[in-house]
Amino acid sequence: MSRTEDAAERDMHKNRPVVGAAPGTLVLPEDSPAPRIHLYAYNETSFVDRRIESPAEIADWIDSDKIIWIDVQGLGDEKVLLELAEIFKLHPLALEDIVHVPQRPKAQAYEEHQLLFTRMLTGGADGEVDVEQVSFVIADNYVVSFQERHGDVLDGVRKRLETGNNKLRTSGSDYLAYALVDTLVDAYVPVIEALGDCIADLEDEVFEGNSDNTLHALNELRSTLLSLRRSIWPLRDALNQLIRVEHGAFGADVRVYLRDVYDHCVNASDMIEAYRELSTGLMNSYLSVVSNRMNEVMKVLTVMSTIFIPLTFLSGLYGMNFVWMPERDWKWSYPILLGAMVMIVAGLLYFFKRRGWFRANT
Amino acid sequence: MSRTEDAAERDMHKNRPVVGAAPGTLVLPEDSPAPRIHLYAYNETSFVDRRIESPAEIADWIDSDKIIWIDVQGLGDEKVLLELAEIFKLHPLALEDIVHVPQRPKAQAYEEHQLLFTRMLTGGADGEVDVEQVSFVIADNYVVSFQERHGDVLDGVRKRLETGNNKLRTSGSDYLAYALVDTLVDAYVPVIEALGDCIADLEDEVFEGNSDNTLHALNELRSTLLSLRRSIWPLRDALNQLIRVEHGAFGADVRVYLRDVYDHCVNASDMIEAYRELSTGLMNSYLSVVSNRMNEVMKVLTVMSTIFIPLTFLSGLYGMNFVWMPERDWKWSYPILLGAMVMIVAGLLYFFKRRGWFRANT
Amino acid sequence: MSRTEDAAERDMHKNRPVVGAAPGTLVLPEDSPAPRIHLYAYNETSFVDRRIESPAEIADWIDSDKIIWIDVQGLGDEKVLLELAEIFKLHPLALEDIVHVPQRPKAQAYEEHQLLFTRMLTGGADGEVDVEQVSFVIADNYVVSFQERHGDVLDGVRKRLETGNNKLRTSGSDYLAYALVDTLVDAYVPVIEALGDCIADLEDEVFEGNSDNTLHALNELRSTLLSLRRSIWPLRDALNQLIRVEHGAFGADVRVYLRDVYDHCVNASDMIEAYRELSTGLMNSYLSVVSNRMNEVMKVLTVMSTIFIPLTFLSGLYGMNFVWMPERDWKWSYPILLGAMVMIVAGLLYFFKRRGWFRANT
Amino acid sequence: MSRTEDAAERDMHKNRPVVGAAPGTLVLPEDSPAPRIHLYAYNETSFVDRRIESPAEIADWIDSDKIIWIDVQGLGDEKVLLELAEIFKLHPLALEDIVHVPQRPKAQAYEEHQLLFTRMLTGGADGEVDVEQVSFVIADNYVVSFQERHGDVLDGVRKRLETGNNKLRTSGSDYLAYALVDTLVDAYVPVIEALGDCIADLEDEVFEGNSDNTLHALNELRSTLLSLRRSIWPLRDALNQLIRVEHGAFGADVRVYLRDVYDHCVNASDMIEAYRELSTGLMNSYLSVVSNRMNEVMKVLTVMSTIFIPLTFLSGLYGMNFVWMPERDWKWSYPILLGAMVMIVAGLLYFFKRRGWFRANT
Amino acid sequence: MSRTEDAAERDMHKNRPVVGAAPGTLVLPEDSPAPRIHLYAYNETSFVDRRIESPAEIADWIDSDKIIWIDVQGLGDEKVLLELAEIFKLHPLALEDIVHVPQRPKAQAYEEHQLLFTRMLTGGADGEVDVEQVSFVIADNYVVSFQERHGDVLDGVRKRLETGNNKLRTSGSDYLAYALVDTLVDAYVPVIEALGDCIADLEDEVFEGNSDNTLHALNELRSTLLSLRRSIWPLRDALNQLIRVEHGAFGADVRVYLRDVYDHCVNASDMIEAYRELSTGLMNSYLSVVSNRMNEVMKVLTVMSTIFIPLTFLSGLYGMNFVWMPERDWKWSYPILLGAMVMIVAGLLYFFKRRGWFRANT
Repeated sequence: MSRTEDAAERDMHKNRPVVGAAPGTLVLPEDSPAPRIHLYAYNETSFVDRRIESPAEIADWIDSDKIIWIDVQGLGDEKVLLELAEIFKLHPLALEDIVHVPQRPKAQAYEEHQLLFTRMLTGGADGEVDVEQVSFVIADNYVVSFQERHGDVLDGVRKRLETGNNKLRTSGSDYLAYALVDTLVDAYVPVIEALGDCIADLEDEVFEGNSDNTLHALNELRSTLLSLRRSIWPLRDALNQLIRVEHGAFGADVRVYLRDVYDHCVNASDMIEAYRELSTGLMNSYLSVVSNRMNEVMKVLTVMSTIFIPLTFLSGLYGMNFVWMPERDWKWSYPILLGAMVMIVAGLLYFFKRRGWFRANT
Repeated sequence: MSRTEDAAERDMHKNRPVVGAAPGTLVLPEDSPAPRIHLYAYNETSFVDRRIESPAEIADWIDSDKIIWIDVQGLGDEKVLLELAEIFKLHPLALEDIVHVPQRPKAQAYEEHQLLFTRMLTGGADGEVDVEQVSFVIADNYVVSFQERHGDVLDGVRKRLETGNNKLRTSGSDYLAYALVDTLVDAYVPVIEALGDCIADLEDEVFEGNSDNTLHALNELRSTLLSLRRSIWPLRDALNQLIRVEHGAFGADVRVYLRDVYDHCVNASDMIEAYRELSTGLMNSYLSVVSNRMNEVMKVLTVMSTIFIPLTFLSGLYGMNFVWMPERDWKWSYPILLGAMVMIVAGLLYFFKRRGWFRANT
Repeated sequence: MSRTEDAAERDMHKNRPVVGAAPGTLVLPEDSPAPRIHLYAYNETSFVDRRIESPAEIADWIDSDKIIWIDVQGLGDEKVLLELAEIFKLHPLALEDIVHVPQRPKAQAYEEHQLLFTRMLTGGADGEVDVEQVSFVIADNYVVSFQERHGDVLDGVRKRLETGNNKLRTSGSDYLAYALVDTLVDAYVPVIEALGDCIADLEDEVFEGNSDNTLHALNELRSTLLSLRRSIWPLRDALNQLIRVEHGAFGADVRVYLRDVYDHCVNASDMIEAYRELSTGLMNSYLSVVSNRMNEVMKVLTVMSTIFIPLTFLSGLYGMNFVWMPERDWKWSYPILLGAMVMIVAGLLYFFKRRGWFRANT
Repeated sequence: MSRTEDAAERDMHKNRPVVGAAPGTLVLPEDSPAPRIHLYAYNETSFVDRRIESPAEIADWIDSDKIIWIDVQGLGDEKVLLELAEIFKLHPLALEDIVHVPQRPKAQAYEEHQLLFTRMLTGGADGEVDVEQVSFVIADNYVVSFQERHGDVLDGVRKRLETGNNKLRTSGSDYLAYALVDTLVDAYVPVIEALGDCIADLEDEVFEGNSDNTLHALNELRSTLLSLRRSIWPLRDALNQLIRVEHGAFGADVRVYLRDVYDHCVNASDMIEAYRELSTGLMNSYLSVVSNRMNEVMKVLTVMSTIFIPLTFLSGLYGMNFVWMPERDWKWSYPILLGAMVMIVAGLLYFFKRRGWFRANT
Repeated sequence: MSRTEDAAERDMHKNRPVVGAAPGTLVLPEDSPAPRIHLYAYNETSFVDRRIESPAEIADWIDSDKIIWIDVQGLGDEKVLLELAEIFKLHPLALEDIVHVPQRPKAQAYEEHQLLFTRMLTGGADGEVDVEQVSFVIADNYVVSFQERHGDVLDGVRKRLETGNNKLRTSGSDYLAYALVDTLVDAYVPVIEALGDCIADLEDEVFEGNSDNTLHALNELRSTLLSLRRSIWPLRDALNQLIRVEHGAFGADVRVYLRDVYDHCVNASDMIEAYRELSTGLMNSYLSVVSNRMNEVMKVLTVMSTIFIPLTFLSGLYGMNFVWMPERDWKWSYPILLGAMVMIVAGLLYFFKRRGWFRANT
């Protein structure tokens, strides 16, 4: 479960500059690779997909009449990031927020562009979720996306751009931004559902009791759910904020679509809350199952002890060596005693049966 | 309990398009049958009930001076749905929400019509609730309702339409929409009450302890209640939103009636909250009952052990084979020892009685 | 405890029309008696108290210059209710709410009159509370009150009306309505206090442990408190709503008095919250007491076993029949062994004492 | 702990008139002494402190150009209270609120004066807090304070009035009211801190386990904290309300000081919340400690039983009287058996040690 | 853990004047050293760092055209504090709040300056956090900071002031104040992370069970987290208040930076909430682990007892001394009995194995 812990820990321990450093001081995320930049430029009729080696190449494209998506994967080179910041006129604090992952998801309006910080979730199959920050700079005719690592869930958008003949190619940069965020949010549900499957597995483990780290796994899962919650709730607020702004980066027609993303976000956080409640119930069940199991153990002990302790006493009684002990010399003493013992056992078994001790109570 | 789990799971695992697909891409619900369409057209004096085979038949009716209810049951045919969407000028996102069940209940205003997503609840008798999405498109002179499956709880409305001579036949499409939603919401209460009966049964099981899956059933029930809560709470908000809009799809006189539906919704969610609290209390009781039962078991063990252990020791003592053991040779040793044993037993019984161990403490 | 359960259940299972029935369809409460109607008409100088046999008698009184209070007890006759509704011009939904008990307490303004739905609480002495709906129709010169059953807590108001020479006789119908609601709310506190006494009794039971259905009674009480909460909280909101409306049914001077009723309501709900917290604490205490008691049982078992088990072993040792066993033939073996046993017992007792096992730990 | 219970109970059971009595009907608190009235009149240069025997004496002073503080201690004489109400033109409901202790702290504006209901806390040392209602009537040139009993915490204010040469003597009645409320609120903190010391003591008791009513005391303390919470939270709201009113009884300069009192109130309620959380944690610790202690008991039992039960069996085996039992006749049987027993004991002790059973686990 | 307790206690027990003292009465914190004052004056081109011996020296600097930071460390000398208050025209209540540590973090606007009360956190490594109040007086051209003790985390700002050539040297006093608060808030995260490491350690202790004060340490940690929460939450509100004020002490450009500090604050409180949830989960795990461990102990006892008790009975049976006991005289009795015993043991072991008692269940 080490990857999950990493995810949860990354959520907490963020790389950051020395306390007291000037605002805007960049400290790159330790494990982030060098940026790999792609430029996608399109309008209704044409589509260009170009690998960018140096940020300087971008400048020409921005002023063209096409919609541009600059897709930056990896934050591991300060020089490149600063060049990009200059080209897109990013506020130093904005760049700091993009680099110092993880930021709480939020929307921040600057004069020339809108910033939106979101998270990409992947995995979930073994209770381990990989959380990655994706930041968007949304301007009139371009969108820049920054990801921590190579690889993402946005291939669907790339394909729609390439094949053309759809609303994406005929709309502005705000619709592109919507399409990207929508795709990220759509990818939340399968991750959360995978966690739901983990809960179902844990439920079986709890009631069948054939695993020895159920408790630990349950705690891990709760911690993962908590971490997802911190990813999704603030995004709801950020989206809601974008929907409510009248003359912002998003046009009225695209805001209708954003409302749809917002709904999906609400759905995702509903699912998380439901799973959190389920996992709480599961913790209670676990405690009950442990208690019940101890009950079973105690019953076995008590039944065995209670049956044999009186018998042992009786046999001990007639093992005494007193000289005067008349029963000892009667011929029928032994069979009578054996008969009495059988009756004691029968009586006790009947007593236990009536108390329902032979019924399983899990 | 498989059906309940389905219901709870359906609430979670919704069918959905591939991540990154264009908005408006339709993915039909897997188990939904082909649409069965009925058209009900009426005014104060006439009433028509017609089975529609092809959506094209509807076009003529819409422009008539009658109020129309198009009742679509089943979402299993993409072509029919797209035709309907075109006739009623549905926004692609609206159609997507209708098809991608389950949506969170919500009200969404578009220019030509008002959308309302609600849920129909049925069952409840064995703790299993069947949740089905019912979506309404409400326009000036027609209402379209979409259900996932054939069969519903709306026969009361159909009958009132047919018999005539009531407010329904003399009012507009908004009153029809109210009547349909009201009927759906009225059907919530018996379902929730059936769950309340399940809780009462579980309470008996907990205190009588004669079932071996009480804990599991309790968890199932809590999960079902949670799922109903997610169905009803958002509907409250949606209705409240409709009531507050001044110049929306609902006239002032019908909004008074909607307020009544809202009240019923609040009542239903109050009941659910109450049952949730009761089930939490029941979980606590279960833990206490298990503890108490273990207490009983321990008492039996302790009473038996404590009484016989000293006696066994005494008899063992006089079973020793030392050559010099004067008591052994006295004539009255045996009866004296027996008498001592009786007194020990009496003393211990008195001790236990004073401690109250013979009192049941459940 | 059957009556309490009834109260809690009534709160849940309300009588209601068939799903899909037209709004305004009346279904009378099953156990409600036939209406018994009283008319009280008064002004500063005169007071009339008349038993009404037929609603038609009321019509003349309404147009008089007196303030009228029509006191309807019992909802068991549809015809009478419909006649009353016609005389007072009640909206069909209003009458439905009056009849379909229990409604959530609420205030609803109609054009000609103000409706207020409240609840009357009685009992409480054995943890059983009787909840009854009281609905008020408040118009310019009359107040109509509807109760489910005969008998109420409003005799104080009737007496003040009869004796005269007080603010009630010189004020309008709004002050009458205030006086009635104030009296209902004042009657909440003794009921809640009686529940508080039940909690105190249960607390004694928990710590003394001399009752065998403490747990059940505690759950019942929590359920009753929950039910009262649902009666009082919405009433707070309803009253607050009436206080805030500037030109409503209540004049500015009477609104000052309503503020007082609101304060009493807040007080009552504070008490309920406090009792709920106390009962939660009591549940925890109960669990602790059960644990402690098991601890005691275990200590007795352990002390007895631990003392006698080694002794029994020793005596068994010298009960063996080996031919070569030198101790057996020594004269002092027996007294030495007895002495050793006494020392073992003393040692173990000292060990237990130092561990504090002879101290009660409840 | 009887005094604490009284405090908590007084908080709940208030004296009150018969249900249905006219508003303004006075029912005096049972244990309240006859009123003892002091009048303090002052301006910048002079100060008068006079014991008032009859309310009539006050009338002259009110119209003087001095600031007056009438300090009424004890509510046990209806006639005196009614005379005071007439002099100060108190609304009947206002007088009722002053007399019917305890009221929820609140601020109520009347035309001629501002009412403020607060509480005085004293004690706390043994977990027992004495709660007393102090009501203020604040008018342009006088303040009347009503206390339930003789004696208070306001001597500091009296001294500052007497010594003069401070802001109090040169300011108006609003500053006097502020000074009184501020003094009451300042007195909350030592009371709450004393409860904090009680919690620290209880924490020691829980972990050392040398007291037998820890659980009861913990519940008492939680109940006291709950009662203080109900005293302080509403006061926050009342003060906030006074601060926000622009043209009320308090001038802008004094409202700055009221903000300070409000801050102290927030501090006090923060402390209470913190102590409540601590006491919840303590309850959990208590349960854990009880479990751990049972664990210890069980370990002792198990160690002793597990060691001696096999030995006893072995010795019983060779105590059998079969005629053919070859071991019995061998010379070395006895010493070999003793050796085997020593090895069994050693083996079991090693097993327990490896399992860590000899380590304390509290 | 004494230092932690001090921190938590300091948070609660603040030094304060006698109840009833005039507002503005100063009571110095007991352990606070004499003030050590530094003055930093700078503009774009020059920077002066001067140790101030007497407050009078400051007066000249204030009216200069430089931005001034007066850094007061230690609150142990009333005379110096009063002189400072006079120079900066502090309201008596403001000075009281600065001296009476700890205040709840808050922002208070006075006419000439803005006050901001914050807290500095240090430590955290052993679960012990040192909380110190830092108060800021922010005016047009100077900032005064008051700390309780010598030493702080602000050296980064001092260095940036000294090295120059950055935004700090070219901006106004509001940017200086921002830089100081930002540095304080940046220092929260490592402290909280250190507590997170403590939680991770405690988690290991809980599951490995090799420490004997896990429970106590967990409670301590929760109490520390609670105390940090009370430090950070109110600061969020205070910062938010400053951001929203249009024409306050902070210019529009600096408010963008304050928004960043606010985000960091939200991040910090998110972390604290997450750790609080984790520690709650850990408490539950602890209880489960204790239960599981008792389960293990019980199993050992039950297995041993259940195996040997029937054997002991059998051997006792044939130790009886009846004269007529035929088995005793048969030659094969002894070996047959031994064989039977082996079979009993094998049967019981199989029974336990099937029940899964030999599987660890932690």
